[in-house]
Amino acid sequence: MIPEKMREVLTHDGVVAIATLGQDGPHMVNTWNSYVRISDDGRILIPVGYMHRTEANIAFNNQVLITLGSRKVTGNMGPGTGFLIKGTAGIENSGPDFDLTKAKFAWARAVMAVTADSIEQTL
Amino acid sequence: MIPEKMREVLTHDGVVAIATLGQDGPHMVNTWNSYVRISDDGRILIPVGYMHRTEANIAFNNQVLITLGSRKVTGNMGPGTGFLIKGTAGIENSGPDFDLTKAKFAWARAVMAVTADSIEQTL
Repeated sequence: MIPEKMREVLTHDGVVAIATLGQDGPHMVNTWNSYVRISDDGRILIPVGYMHRTEANIAFNNQVLITLGSRKVTGNMGPGTGFLIKGTAGIENSGPDFDLTKAKFAWARAVMAVTADSIEQTL
Repeated sequence: MIPEKMREVLTHDGVVAIATLGQDGPHMVNTWNSYVRISDDGRILIPVGYMHRTEANIAFNNQVLITLGSRKVTGNMGPGTGFLIKGTAGIENSGPDFDLTKAKFAWARAVMAVTADSIEQTL
């Protein structure tokens, strides 16, 4: 289940960070809150532009960590909230999720579909 | 050297992500752009409130990845820029950097001082 507050964060400007672990160690890339969509079945869909090292890491180890937040959404400690998502990721370059992503983000070469194993509100 | 554009990002609202690698795998925490200071000698200083797992990971492996960005600063591809910092971190709970941090953030129990080994503008 995607928390309502996380959906609220995604309506505000902000940076998403995605960490993966490859043979060469951890790697991190960013995307924007506004690029992230939640599918009807609750997966987190992120358009993939570059992210070549992230894609290679996911092929090696499909566990990802994602953080996102907004200073403009009230959290547990006042202004600002953030989420830490642990999930299982796949990179898809065909299929309905890819088609929807491509329709909105013409530059997307694939979509990262993340099934959240846990979502923790950190602030 | 800290790029001017990164300093500009830090003047805008935004989420910073810090990834560490421990014995249990990668972990990620967030802080806010506005909490980050750059010391006169170019280290990145981040107040530590909770971050217990991050601290334990740094004791195990002091290499950290940090991302930060802002949609409000122009990057290489239009609105929005981001940075990926690879650095070496230490947690300090005394000394001049800690005192300055504590003076500004009374809740800080320590300061994370990061020496950047590389800073890459990713967007």
